[in-house]
Amino acid sequence: MISAGIVGGTGYTGVELLRLLAAHPSVALSAITSRGQAGTPVADVFPNLRGVVDLAYTEPTQGTLGDCDVVFFATPNGTAMEMAPALIEQGVRVIDLGADFRLRDLDEWAHWYGMPHTCAALAAEAVYGLPECHREAIRAARLVANPGCYPTAVQLGLIPLLEAGAVDTQSLIADAKSGASGAGRQPRQHTLLCEAGENFHAYGASGHRHLPEIRQGLNDAAGKPVGLVFVPHLVPMIRGIHATLYARLLDPTIDLQGLYEQRYANEPFVDVMPPGTHPETRSVRGSNMVRIAVHRPEGSDYALILAVEDNLVKGAAGQAVQNMNLMFDLPETMGLESIGLLP
Amino acid sequence: MISAGIVGGTGYTGVELLRLLAAHPSVALSAITSRGQAGTPVADVFPNLRGVVDLAYTEPTQGTLGDCDVVFFATPNGTAMEMAPALIEQGVRVIDLGADFRLRDLDEWAHWYGMPHTCAALAAEAVYGLPECHREAIRAARLVANPGCYPTAVQLGLIPLLEAGAVDTQSLIADAKSGASGAGRQPRQHTLLCEAGENFHAYGASGHRHLPEIRQGLNDAAGKPVGLVFVPHLVPMIRGIHATLYARLLDPTIDLQGLYEQRYANEPFVDVMPPGTHPETRSVRGSNMVRIAVHRPEGSDYALILAVEDNLVKGAAGQAVQNMNLMFDLPETMGLESIGLLP
Amino acid sequence: MISAGIVGGTGYTGVELLRLLAAHPSVALSAITSRGQAGTPVADVFPNLRGVVDLAYTEPTQGTLGDCDVVFFATPNGTAMEMAPALIEQGVRVIDLGADFRLRDLDEWAHWYGMPHTCAALAAEAVYGLPECHREAIRAARLVANPGCYPTAVQLGLIPLLEAGAVDTQSLIADAKSGASGAGRQPRQHTLLCEAGENFHAYGASGHRHLPEIRQGLNDAAGKPVGLVFVPHLVPMIRGIHATLYARLLDPTIDLQGLYEQRYANEPFVDVMPPGTHPETRSVRGSNMVRIAVHRPEGSDYALILAVEDNLVKGAAGQAVQNMNLMFDLPETMGLESIGLLP
Amino acid sequence: MISAGIVGGTGYTGVELLRLLAAHPSVALSAITSRGQAGTPVADVFPNLRGVVDLAYTEPTQGTLGDCDVVFFATPNGTAMEMAPALIEQGVRVIDLGADFRLRDLDEWAHWYGMPHTCAALAAEAVYGLPECHREAIRAARLVANPGCYPTAVQLGLIPLLEAGAVDTQSLIADAKSGASGAGRQPRQHTLLCEAGENFHAYGASGHRHLPEIRQGLNDAAGKPVGLVFVPHLVPMIRGIHATLYARLLDPTIDLQGLYEQRYANEPFVDVMPPGTHPETRSVRGSNMVRIAVHRPEGSDYALILAVEDNLVKGAAGQAVQNMNLMFDLPETMGLESIGLLP
Repeated sequence: MISAGIVGGTGYTGVELLRLLAAHPSVALSAITSRGQAGTPVADVFPNLRGVVDLAYTEPTQGTLGDCDVVFFATPNGTAMEMAPALIEQGVRVIDLGADFRLRDLDEWAHWYGMPHTCAALAAEAVYGLPECHREAIRAARLVANPGCYPTAVQLGLIPLLEAGAVDTQSLIADAKSGASGAGRQPRQHTLLCEAGENFHAYGASGHRHLPEIRQGLNDAAGKPVGLVFVPHLVPMIRGIHATLYARLLDPTIDLQGLYEQRYANEPFVDVMPPGTHPETRSVRGSNMVRIAVHRPEGSDYALILAVEDNLVKGAAGQAVQNMNLMFDLPETMGLESIGLLP
Repeated sequence: MISAGIVGGTGYTGVELLRLLAAHPSVALSAITSRGQAGTPVADVFPNLRGVVDLAYTEPTQGTLGDCDVVFFATPNGTAMEMAPALIEQGVRVIDLGADFRLRDLDEWAHWYGMPHTCAALAAEAVYGLPECHREAIRAARLVANPGCYPTAVQLGLIPLLEAGAVDTQSLIADAKSGASGAGRQPRQHTLLCEAGENFHAYGASGHRHLPEIRQGLNDAAGKPVGLVFVPHLVPMIRGIHATLYARLLDPTIDLQGLYEQRYANEPFVDVMPPGTHPETRSVRGSNMVRIAVHRPEGSDYALILAVEDNLVKGAAGQAVQNMNLMFDLPETMGLESIGLLP
Repeated sequence: MISAGIVGGTGYTGVELLRLLAAHPSVALSAITSRGQAGTPVADVFPNLRGVVDLAYTEPTQGTLGDCDVVFFATPNGTAMEMAPALIEQGVRVIDLGADFRLRDLDEWAHWYGMPHTCAALAAEAVYGLPECHREAIRAARLVANPGCYPTAVQLGLIPLLEAGAVDTQSLIADAKSGASGAGRQPRQHTLLCEAGENFHAYGASGHRHLPEIRQGLNDAAGKPVGLVFVPHLVPMIRGIHATLYARLLDPTIDLQGLYEQRYANEPFVDVMPPGTHPETRSVRGSNMVRIAVHRPEGSDYALILAVEDNLVKGAAGQAVQNMNLMFDLPETMGLESIGLLP
Repeated sequence: MISAGIVGGTGYTGVELLRLLAAHPSVALSAITSRGQAGTPVADVFPNLRGVVDLAYTEPTQGTLGDCDVVFFATPNGTAMEMAPALIEQGVRVIDLGADFRLRDLDEWAHWYGMPHTCAALAAEAVYGLPECHREAIRAARLVANPGCYPTAVQLGLIPLLEAGAVDTQSLIADAKSGASGAGRQPRQHTLLCEAGENFHAYGASGHRHLPEIRQGLNDAAGKPVGLVFVPHLVPMIRGIHATLYARLLDPTIDLQGLYEQRYANEPFVDVMPPGTHPETRSVRGSNMVRIAVHRPEGSDYALILAVEDNLVKGAAGQAVQNMNLMFDLPETMGLESIGLLP
């Protein structure tokens, strides 16, 4: 059994990690930390875990965490940067669900996250945890930077086009929509039911933290800097991300459907839907699957890609478990077989 | 492996049965029938099952179904009554998620369901599939009448009080609230998002089909006819039932918490919550658990019982699988361990 | 024109008051105060008011408010108690949408609101602003205590039965359901879309602040102390309260429909629905109407009353404007004619 | 008073027309027809109209409608085409909220609407009812083709850029999102609360009926054929459309904010928001306003336009009333002053 610890287990990615790890056949949950909730039983905070998780939150100390085989950070940006080095020193493997190690350019990181990056060495070593692109490196990684929710959907949706050199790399548009759980469990006015419910709007149109992360991945796939417009929107629902992606095709006669089916033929968690379909976010609710449909809008030279995921699963906790499975030579799908909850 | 068939697999109880049975370690899905959808792959109707269920719907014929060990009916009332006898004749065990075999009084059945009951013999033999009350009979049953969604929550909430003779049996009030999935997948105006969303109302206040079913169970528990007011309401959400139950206590000094904890001490799917808590429907979303909290409202002689369930799981498909596990000597919780999806 | 001021205009009752008063033909909005938002244009906080309200929030000073004909308090409990005396001294008439002046028993007030009551004199003078019961007193009042949202629906639903002496006064049960706007605009975890959405639960089952307020009104109507169980629930929607009310009839042959139609025959904002109907909260969304339906559940001696209101209108701001109309001899319905927004 | 009739008053545009016309100071509702509901009081179908509209539905006969000054068609496509000619013959002015007269190219109309167009003469005479573009022609029109919901938001969002020749006319992308009321009140599976709730997806990506209508308007504004990709999405809410619009700027130094403020300076129902803001659909719920914000995404040469409307008001019934006001020389805003309902 793999002994797993979670730092910061009181948010939505935390409870989702708990749900997945508690049911994982090869994992023993050994520590869940929270400064605010130390001493409180986990099941008091998350009643869905009553009778399943009998741990209580503890203070985040080296001791408890140092004995784990793997530690997941589900913490505000900046925390993993502080605590990961000592743990890795002790031989603990780390998966950071935050953003601390996602960007290679630390000046850009400092610009977007509003603090200096204090851990350049590990940042250089960290592996970006998108298995569909970095599977082998993840297997060997001591530190995995788990991708953001938007970046997972947008990258998986656009990468096949860029790898194939099929589109004008300056014409990329990502119109993304997310359920409110992406904004976290901290009480804030704009995510109250009375503010976000029965309402729809864009946000961060002037620039969103996930933009540089997405751009970094797309640049790698294209082999050169891409031009990308990324506009996130808040959807009045709890879970789910829908990325609507546009790119101008260089050769309108290309077989898009074949391109995507081939690229993801061996991917357990990417489902290329039949031509003419429209993936629904609910079809992956609670599941680690990403579903992608490919369209050629009538009378235009654009490719239209529709990609959906559960932002808390493939967009966060599920992908983290997928990465853990790879790091510990377990079947990649272990503990991630659950079927989307529909309706 | 148990070979299982489903008659009427295009509704919400049908897709939920598919989700549970597809993941059940001892079940092989061998037939799913639908008159309307014969020939259509199940995964085309329910995309969450893509890659999981590769069956297509077939016409409901004796042949395919007769080879099953168990057949589930997720059909409109009246269908199981027609088809079950021949199947049982062939040695197939039947679990009816409809109402055909729930009432012992067939005149009352005919009154509430608006058609004559054509299968008195089986009706007399059928076992009411509430494991918390009829576990042993279910093990041996050829035909199980799976309880309705409201009756499951209301009976589990009130039975301990009635069995203990603790309340005025003429003072029972069940104020019940259900998500819209209880109304089924047939397109009807009142369950459109634009009608049921951002809206709350009671319905069937003059009398609801689940009233006689609940009354029958409560009469058994009380050992005499009870007086019950049952008022269902439609909640603007998809899954979940919340039953708010009131009964006047004969002895206000009774230890209600102890009574409930004792009654359900050995029940795998009934969770008696700590004193002073309020169970949330989301805590059992997708799970087979019922959570119950017991209150003594300030300055009154009433007991207040709060009970929640997922109407599609413990209120329908999950309870059906629980019954199947009992009928085939499998661990009662097999295939039903999934944790509530929160948020 | 009546010069109106609002103290605490940043919450949901505040913005609803702004919406109603901005469109009121005989009112000039002259001051809106907010300690937190002083200097911010109202329309920056509430974009629906762009082009309609061009005021900015100001500090709550005697000056600005003292020049008003009427001042509305949409503030946390305790504020009106502090500020109202000086204003009334200056001849300003006050309508408190908070709870400071709702209870005659100030010890009970201190018990439920967790602070001493510092304004006994005004508390004795304040008129409870339920026009259907205190219309004449309201006309002459210097200080009106605007009823709470739950108390408005529950009292209007039960008072006809109590005034007529038709029910066992110890058998009253109020099972009430409210949209999340009743919990206010302050960011709190339990009202986040991800917590309150797709979820249903009771709260305050052990005792809710509106219980003594409701009891006071029902005692007056019954002419003796009543026995009441009051259980509030949170509905996953924004606006609306549905009260499901139960009382045991002394004479089961009574004409309930006639009783209610007669009691409310001349009330502009109480609609007694036809027999057998179920009022929907959406039918009064944004409107000042209360709709009530009366039922006799089959085979019981209980009366079942269903009452709906918009908790922010008849349950708060609309009723406050109705009271203002009475206080200033305006047509009672002026500025309150808007039709429920459906769908 | 203007005598108004409505053909097809049982859908969502119908009830919204009723809400607006019932409160319009210069309109007398004289007839509401419905084949299915003839004889039923309107208020039985729409309880929000109880006490406000006392008409019953009637059969759509020439008689009742022929006496009206104006008749609104809120009917399935094809109906207005049949009935309008005779009414116009009688001197009745007609506003069609359907699509029958929106396209000038009747072959394209037949292609998209799947039936031959039988009324070429009137189609040639009909005025497209977008006041911001055709105000003077509307004043004189006998027949107004009221724009579709998506076309209103997309055209108002893009026209200033096209009229100014500021963008590459082949680079237009309209990523549009609509609440479920846009799909109408006919019971259909995909708009059930259990299908559309907690879910998000695109639809009609291969081509939507509103595409040719939008293209026609944009071609007029650009003075040449534009290249447009239009992708609609279904949002889990009742009312509201959000159009996210992208176009490549020819001159990135252009003053976009000034361009929009100038274009709409005198428009009573177009609100150009301050730079850097994100309009919310709820800010126009129940109101006839369109709110537009203009952005320049960081490091790209695209213009990003965000436009919101209430699809049932400015996107349908409200715009129809605005057109009626113009046709009958009433103040353009009469009966359309109601403020967005927030929260």
